[in-house]
Amino acid sequence: MIRVMVNGAGGKMGREVVKAVHADSELTLVGGIDPTKDGQDIGTVAGIEPLQITMAPSVDDVLGNNKPDVIVDFTNPAVIFENAKKILSAGVHLVIGTTGLTEEQRNELHEIGLKNQANCLVAPNFSLGAVMMMKVAADLAPYFPDVEIIELHHNHKYDAPSGTSILTAKLINDAKQAANVTSSEDLTRESLPGARGAKVDDITIHSVRLPGYVAHQEVLFGGHDETLTIRHDSLSRLSFMPGVVLACKKITSKPGLTYGLEHYL
Amino acid sequence: MIRVMVNGAGGKMGREVVKAVHADSELTLVGGIDPTKDGQDIGTVAGIEPLQITMAPSVDDVLGNNKPDVIVDFTNPAVIFENAKKILSAGVHLVIGTTGLTEEQRNELHEIGLKNQANCLVAPNFSLGAVMMMKVAADLAPYFPDVEIIELHHNHKYDAPSGTSILTAKLINDAKQAANVTSSEDLTRESLPGARGAKVDDITIHSVRLPGYVAHQEVLFGGHDETLTIRHDSLSRLSFMPGVVLACKKITSKPGLTYGLEHYL
Amino acid sequence: MIRVMVNGAGGKMGREVVKAVHADSELTLVGGIDPTKDGQDIGTVAGIEPLQITMAPSVDDVLGNNKPDVIVDFTNPAVIFENAKKILSAGVHLVIGTTGLTEEQRNELHEIGLKNQANCLVAPNFSLGAVMMMKVAADLAPYFPDVEIIELHHNHKYDAPSGTSILTAKLINDAKQAANVTSSEDLTRESLPGARGAKVDDITIHSVRLPGYVAHQEVLFGGHDETLTIRHDSLSRLSFMPGVVLACKKITSKPGLTYGLEHYL
Amino acid sequence: MIRVMVNGAGGKMGREVVKAVHADSELTLVGGIDPTKDGQDIGTVAGIEPLQITMAPSVDDVLGNNKPDVIVDFTNPAVIFENAKKILSAGVHLVIGTTGLTEEQRNELHEIGLKNQANCLVAPNFSLGAVMMMKVAADLAPYFPDVEIIELHHNHKYDAPSGTSILTAKLINDAKQAANVTSSEDLTRESLPGARGAKVDDITIHSVRLPGYVAHQEVLFGGHDETLTIRHDSLSRLSFMPGVVLACKKITSKPGLTYGLEHYL
Repeated sequence: MIRVMVNGAGGKMGREVVKAVHADSELTLVGGIDPTKDGQDIGTVAGIEPLQITMAPSVDDVLGNNKPDVIVDFTNPAVIFENAKKILSAGVHLVIGTTGLTEEQRNELHEIGLKNQANCLVAPNFSLGAVMMMKVAADLAPYFPDVEIIELHHNHKYDAPSGTSILTAKLINDAKQAANVTSSEDLTRESLPGARGAKVDDITIHSVRLPGYVAHQEVLFGGHDETLTIRHDSLSRLSFMPGVVLACKKITSKPGLTYGLEHYL
Repeated sequence: MIRVMVNGAGGKMGREVVKAVHADSELTLVGGIDPTKDGQDIGTVAGIEPLQITMAPSVDDVLGNNKPDVIVDFTNPAVIFENAKKILSAGVHLVIGTTGLTEEQRNELHEIGLKNQANCLVAPNFSLGAVMMMKVAADLAPYFPDVEIIELHHNHKYDAPSGTSILTAKLINDAKQAANVTSSEDLTRESLPGARGAKVDDITIHSVRLPGYVAHQEVLFGGHDETLTIRHDSLSRLSFMPGVVLACKKITSKPGLTYGLEHYL
Repeated sequence: MIRVMVNGAGGKMGREVVKAVHADSELTLVGGIDPTKDGQDIGTVAGIEPLQITMAPSVDDVLGNNKPDVIVDFTNPAVIFENAKKILSAGVHLVIGTTGLTEEQRNELHEIGLKNQANCLVAPNFSLGAVMMMKVAADLAPYFPDVEIIELHHNHKYDAPSGTSILTAKLINDAKQAANVTSSEDLTRESLPGARGAKVDDITIHSVRLPGYVAHQEVLFGGHDETLTIRHDSLSRLSFMPGVVLACKKITSKPGLTYGLEHYL
Repeated sequence: MIRVMVNGAGGKMGREVVKAVHADSELTLVGGIDPTKDGQDIGTVAGIEPLQITMAPSVDDVLGNNKPDVIVDFTNPAVIFENAKKILSAGVHLVIGTTGLTEEQRNELHEIGLKNQANCLVAPNFSLGAVMMMKVAADLAPYFPDVEIIELHHNHKYDAPSGTSILTAKLINDAKQAANVTSSEDLTRESLPGARGAKVDDITIHSVRLPGYVAHQEVLFGGHDETLTIRHDSLSRLSFMPGVVLACKKITSKPGLTYGLEHYL
């Protein structure tokens, strides 16, 4: 059994992680950290039955005796780097869903992890579907170099394009360069500005923002009298949980810091 | 039986019209006009069996004795207005698929038609599917005022957005104004210019240009935890033929000039 | 202000109705009925702030002085008919989302309603999107008589096809009969039984059951080198709330019993 | 330059192959075989300019001096096996798009090919998009074992399900077995027979047959609050040409007989 603790266990994501870890037969939930819920029962906070596990106020309180095997961190960019250094230095594996680490910081964590035999996964997106969509898109690009992306989100999402669509475009561009293929020339003239979308290198991205959507993305490949389309639809943040659980189980197998859940698949 | 003649019978569209009229049991094909095919058999030119009907070189040659009931015109903007005046003045109904008539010219043709009991249909799009898509979109807009349009065409289509998408947006905006409804505010910030598409008043349009597509359009309506989508897919210019045939049959019923096939449905 | 009470206010749907009525500026929530929550605060039960409104145990307790203008009923088939008779006899309008009333029972309620100037709406589906999808499908069928339906639901939905898809097929068949149009003959031979779906008269229905879906339906129309598709995607039961609120506002305008939210649109 | 000859050069597919080979800069068209067009110019028959290449009446006439490097065969099941034996025995590579070879016959051709250093590709589908859709579907199945297939074709296609959908289902089932994963149990009860489609082992297939479609397939994967969909749309038989051209270029690299274009990708 892998002993898991959740940092940020009182937040929206953290509570879902608590439930997912608790429900999994190969993982044991052994604790939660949240300064705003210090002393409360982790199960009660998550909205399930009391689990007789008391919230700790800080990472420092859980790295002594009875350390977990893995800590899952969904806290915030302001604290993630300092906490990550402490956790890895204590020889505890770390799964990070919090955004905001720079490449330089990730490199430093990689070194600390290697020195302490503590592995670290940093993943911008834990949805298996989103990760597989990106992988498949990169696999197809050498055969279908003409690609556009449409991403559709709720109108409360303020930025456009989405981070996932930009990352997808970058992965496709890398795959095309590696295969030495290029798109057809884009000769279209815009009679209204913006019609042809945003560009990430060679790839066009269109962002739809409408009520009723959650998080959706289509990657469209044009071919010779044929088209190929991949679509990912995400209903809720629950779609992240199988990826988090998988990460807890596989983290022992990848020394140092790994960036992206796709390396675990 | 309705006696139909085709102007521009040797062109891409004209040849299809010849075949469609010939195949319909309520219409009789009685002639074709094309200066570049003068004297050739209209069936042979269309790629079917010879029909023992000889191409005439100009409109003037067919408006004497033995005039048709209807002329279908798929010629070009340079000649359409002068020909239309002659045809209507001769008391012959006219179905126009050629683009380029101004509103002023249409008004003049309306008057000529009324005076000579010759009706005229001008339609920017003869596809029943496209026309119905626009009608349905306008019907839905009062209930779902948050709307975006995605149109997808072959990368050889040089302009963006498509004429049909702009017309659809206008019809939706008119329907929203009539119903006195407005969209949710668009608060999205573009981190890459163009991501949020082009705007026609309140409606966003995204234009995809990829090989493998022909002519496709989606109208997306966002609601309260639900979405509604209409999609039209057109395979080829053959999708125009049922609309042309319908127009030939119904043209006697609408005095003067009518703009848009939707008024015949 | 329209004074609204909710029968079944402690159930899943009822709690959402409480919140939706409370949030609407033209409606006033004046009470809730639920025998299992007798005496509790209706706001607390719904998971919002206390509203200082106490749950009543039965319909009989709310039809004396201080009767509401409208009761919304999301209870269950076993009790709906008897309750509906009491409510309408007391001169209170009634919006019914509970299923299970027979046509005979609806006729009887219609008579009782007319006699007591109390109107009644019975709607199998309160989603505006689903209702509009069905309306549009019936509008299109005369022009595109070749139709198939694909409905996609979560694999926990045990029956197939869905009630909405069967109702859609019936409405399409009615529209085709009224327009005197018929489908192309279906000559396909099934090499594996079930491939060509279920039949409701002339219309084919295919039922997808997979985790990750909620409630979705596509109506596909085949034409001449073109297709037209309507798709409805529902995220959750929250998509019913705009329809319920609309019904409360419009119920005074339709004497007797009305079947189907589409008559209010 | 690879010297290519086309067997069945006067047929629908053959004429397209002639044009595709002629247009490719790495291939040289050196002849065509068709008993019904003996002595005619291969370019004229294909509907392009005359190429000064005369059609031969049979395979025997082209295997002497001046043999091609590769023969592409789109003839018919009645003659393919005997011709294939002759061609491979003469040391000429062979790309077969004709269906109907049994596994036993393919094994025999494999041996003949190895003995004569002549390679053979047999492909049921030369569309890159269809082949990649199948590959991707098999790649995803271990992560998303709940899968259904919807295939949509013109109503003139008489059988259902399509061969491609059955093959896709088999590849998915193989991938699931290899990964030792199984679907969620299907508990749905059909109130109308056929609603839940046809079954190939664990995979459900739904076949839509409507005018306006050509050849389309969706593979739907259900996950944890998310879904992933791959869609392939084919406009015409032209979508086969890039696969045929690729096969001509790569056939030297795969000794013996290869079954399926995916092994060349």
